[in-house]
Amino acid sequence: MGPRWKGKGSEAKALADPMSKIVLQLQSSLTQSDAQGLLSGCSVLYQADEEQTDLFNRACFGRPIVTADKDKQWFQLGVEEAFYLSCHLKCLKIVDGQDCEKNAEQLWEYMKSQKATFPEFYKAYQHLRMKNWVVRPGSQYGVDFVAYRHHPALVHSEFAVLVLSEGGGDSNENGRLRVWSDFLCTIRLCGSVAKTLLVLSVNNNGSSSVSPSFLDSYSIEERTVTRWSPEQCRENPAKV
Amino acid sequence: MGPRWKGKGSEAKALADPMSKIVLQLQSSLTQSDAQGLLSGCSVLYQADEEQTDLFNRACFGRPIVTADKDKQWFQLGVEEAFYLSCHLKCLKIVDGQDCEKNAEQLWEYMKSQKATFPEFYKAYQHLRMKNWVVRPGSQYGVDFVAYRHHPALVHSEFAVLVLSEGGGDSNENGRLRVWSDFLCTIRLCGSVAKTLLVLSVNNNGSSSVSPSFLDSYSIEERTVTRWSPEQCRENPAKV
Repeated sequence: MGPRWKGKGSEAKALADPMSKIVLQLQSSLTQSDAQGLLSGCSVLYQADEEQTDLFNRACFGRPIVTADKDKQWFQLGVEEAFYLSCHLKCLKIVDGQDCEKNAEQLWEYMKSQKATFPEFYKAYQHLRMKNWVVRPGSQYGVDFVAYRHHPALVHSEFAVLVLSEGGGDSNENGRLRVWSDFLCTIRLCGSVAKTLLVLSVNNNGSSSVSPSFLDSYSIEERTVTRWSPEQCRENPAKV
Repeated sequence: MGPRWKGKGSEAKALADPMSKIVLQLQSSLTQSDAQGLLSGCSVLYQADEEQTDLFNRACFGRPIVTADKDKQWFQLGVEEAFYLSCHLKCLKIVDGQDCEKNAEQLWEYMKSQKATFPEFYKAYQHLRMKNWVVRPGSQYGVDFVAYRHHPALVHSEFAVLVLSEGGGDSNENGRLRVWSDFLCTIRLCGSVAKTLLVLSVNNNGSSSVSPSFLDSYSIEERTVTRWSPEQCRENPAKV
């Protein structure tokens, strides 16, 4: 299943304006303004100026939130998004309620305390973002993320992503795809919303998850899962 | 969500011909012919005469299978169906490949060896069949069973059924609905196929599962799960 572009001209628009370039622009703008986000429960809040608002929207980071302040736009970033901007792109400082800046280790610790699966989820998020996929929450489809080839205004999401953790402690803390009925349920749903199921198995290879410095030693395996129809394959293998 | 009848007149047809009566006729016919099924892997095979073929089809037990024999129709019964006919309705003897009849304890043991979740699944199957629901495999929808108000020719299945085991050993061997993403996936799929999710939690109340004699001490809780839309409930509670 290829990308499903939204209307004519969308594909050309996307090609002319690569996501990698938009993210670079966002990174540069945030770096120049010495951007600072505020840790708040399970998310990070950031007040963007007009240029950054445009870049946040085009790069699909965070969710704009409505406030009484008309001049500035607030964005709510998920833990993976905030950590990616802060510790991978290194363009966002994050402070707590006492205006105290958190370093990478402290952020990692905090986010793990908010979400036990954070190490694997973050690895998966980073893996896809580094390949220039737009990665958004997948709860609407009962998966962990959805991945878009470009901005959701131009194209439907192509992959429904489940993150499984392999090795170390409980072999699959996420608890998905343990039984056939879950597999069948997920595949059937993905089929009905025209997405391909992408299972990302993250293996910490025995590394500890105490510090983000171990992230590079995590390995990740990509598997797409689709239905196989014997009828379609019987007569003409070339047509499959 | 009420029943979705297939076309005009279906509801009247169903009312005029209650499922309880059809199952009684099947029970009586099998008893009279001293019916005998053959254990074969994960299923039980039964060769039905013309009258019984009609009753099997109308009561929705088993799956007709095609053989070279034109006069007799073979049916393949699932483990829950076979156990229900054999040990609850007591109208089917079951023999193994050596033509040796199996008693209830032996059948129970055999079926547990084929399917670890058999005790809970059978309790759920029996629970629904005793209320005159037609119960069929649910793998097409990624659930354990689907339940019909009457014959599938007359009505769409109303419930997608998941069986969870509570208490004793692993708290949920079936492994479903452990995490939110699975919940969301299942609910979304049920919605898109117009079924209500029915979660049957079977609790063995500390009883052993070594013998079917403990089945009566199992308790079962029914929960239907549906999406709640705050918008629909805000203005006019009477309309919900």
